[in-house]
Amino acid sequence: MRHCLLALVATTIAWPALADPMPSWRDTDTKARIVAFVDAVTDPASPDHVAPADRIAVFDNDGTLWAEKPVYFQLLYALDRLQKMAADDPSILTTDALKAAAAGDMQALAATGEHGLLEVIGATHSGMSVDAFIADAADWLATATHPGTGLRYAQMTYAPMIELLGYLRDEGFATYIVSGGGVHFIRAFSQDAYGIPPEQVIGSVGESAYELVDGVPTLVKKPGIAFIDDKEGKPVGIDRGIGKRPILAVGNSDGDFQMLEWTTASAGARLGVLIHHTDADRAFAYDRDSAVGSLARGLDEGPDRGWVIVDMKADWDRVWTGE
Amino acid sequence: MRHCLLALVATTIAWPALADPMPSWRDTDTKARIVAFVDAVTDPASPDHVAPADRIAVFDNDGTLWAEKPVYFQLLYALDRLQKMAADDPSILTTDALKAAAAGDMQALAATGEHGLLEVIGATHSGMSVDAFIADAADWLATATHPGTGLRYAQMTYAPMIELLGYLRDEGFATYIVSGGGVHFIRAFSQDAYGIPPEQVIGSVGESAYELVDGVPTLVKKPGIAFIDDKEGKPVGIDRGIGKRPILAVGNSDGDFQMLEWTTASAGARLGVLIHHTDADRAFAYDRDSAVGSLARGLDEGPDRGWVIVDMKADWDRVWTGE
Repeated sequence: MRHCLLALVATTIAWPALADPMPSWRDTDTKARIVAFVDAVTDPASPDHVAPADRIAVFDNDGTLWAEKPVYFQLLYALDRLQKMAADDPSILTTDALKAAAAGDMQALAATGEHGLLEVIGATHSGMSVDAFIADAADWLATATHPGTGLRYAQMTYAPMIELLGYLRDEGFATYIVSGGGVHFIRAFSQDAYGIPPEQVIGSVGESAYELVDGVPTLVKKPGIAFIDDKEGKPVGIDRGIGKRPILAVGNSDGDFQMLEWTTASAGARLGVLIHHTDADRAFAYDRDSAVGSLARGLDEGPDRGWVIVDMKADWDRVWTGE
Repeated sequence: MRHCLLALVATTIAWPALADPMPSWRDTDTKARIVAFVDAVTDPASPDHVAPADRIAVFDNDGTLWAEKPVYFQLLYALDRLQKMAADDPSILTTDALKAAAAGDMQALAATGEHGLLEVIGATHSGMSVDAFIADAADWLATATHPGTGLRYAQMTYAPMIELLGYLRDEGFATYIVSGGGVHFIRAFSQDAYGIPPEQVIGSVGESAYELVDGVPTLVKKPGIAFIDDKEGKPVGIDRGIGKRPILAVGNSDGDFQMLEWTTASAGARLGVLIHHTDADRAFAYDRDSAVGSLARGLDEGPDRGWVIVDMKADWDRVWTGE
């Protein structure tokens, strides 16, 4: 009896591989190339076979696993949080950037440049414990809605990408997020939204310190950036956090270029994938001239490098997880 | 037939749990407390049961998983490497610390203090690719021998600790190294020596950069320290690299105090373990007054905190993996 149960469990586990693992992808050359790559590295008889321990797949987050318009969702969170904080204590608005952000004046905030954005992040992402920050971000994600779609942000993850993550894990891949976003913000939703646990989230890192707060051991978030996981920083973040070279990298902007370059330049079957935002009707259409998620070099050089360019409008049968 | 095979596999997988998983540990209260903790967090019927995904165990390396006398083995590697480099090009010896190190004058090197040691690390741990560094460290570990025992360094891992790592993994734990040593140096041997893959090694991090070297994408090690994973740094390193609070922490020096404090201060069954080096005959005996691996606060406060203090001489039936 025990043996039958074990066999039943094993059969159940084996079952999903028989169905189409990515029903939200249309049957285009794009989907075929991704599946062919996975088959090549997982078939023990294939010359390109890769051992499960080395099946490392890395995914950008903003614009790749969920949307990034009108601006990065983490910034929208920071603005909401700053406005709440300012309502309690207006004296925290000590700079032009903070005043503009609290007033919701995006043009004035943009005029303060990257330095202004870092002031907003610093003011809203420090001074509390890591646990309290993650809980606050999770609360925001559970209630806040997107200004354009009215969906909650976790509903604006891309259904085809969630399917790709699950398909890869079923095929023995470890799926990592490698994002320019903050590691603590992403960890507030990555397990529920993507099935990616905290230890497989690599992102930008704010300063933090281990302190006894009223005698209680606490990790406290501090102002200041310890590491920016973007562009040339992504291969560095992958090395520090994984220590293995990925065989599959998926991104959507030129901030992912070096991650795809690092991944696909090594020997053996390797795949780089870029999500091209071509779908103005169901989502957003942008590339070269976008202030957020600009994609130019990837479009120019990607095809010659053998990278797959996903045409969101043509290749995806469905976009939002939450629609 | 397929069902029978599956059942056979399942039975085989279950088998090792029936044998003593830690034969190199004598049947003392120390071993009993460790096993009782593992039983409490893995028994589904236990009030202290912890889901497999949260069974995070963190281990210091130097003095906990392998020896650290006469000095950290990574420093011995750095000295050998510096002497090789100086033989090729004596002009690299630009400071008193580098000259003393290349001459093997430990007293003169010690006189230059921590700054001198960082000069030696900087000179020997930069200017090559990450891959080349790891290959060089692996070559050294395969050939160099310890001045006292004549054993190769990987033979000076502790057999009882290797058994504990395997026992924990068999019980569904993820076993991480959280070391003040350099992450790239540890990755040169952690898989072979401990069964711990690169992505589960957290350590101090030197600066590095992603560059095209003769057109080839390369991660290059640079001088300078990006993060020191010691003392208060260990909980920070755990948060950055794992994002979950461990339930078991094992160390041997006061550099591990905060890691054990962070681990054992949370709710539920938690265990802190300190290896006390009491075995002058088979290994080394040292604690409070040792320049390397000093253990004082842990001995003073550990017992009241419920931490297990391992008496190496009394609790271990065997020490070196390589003996």
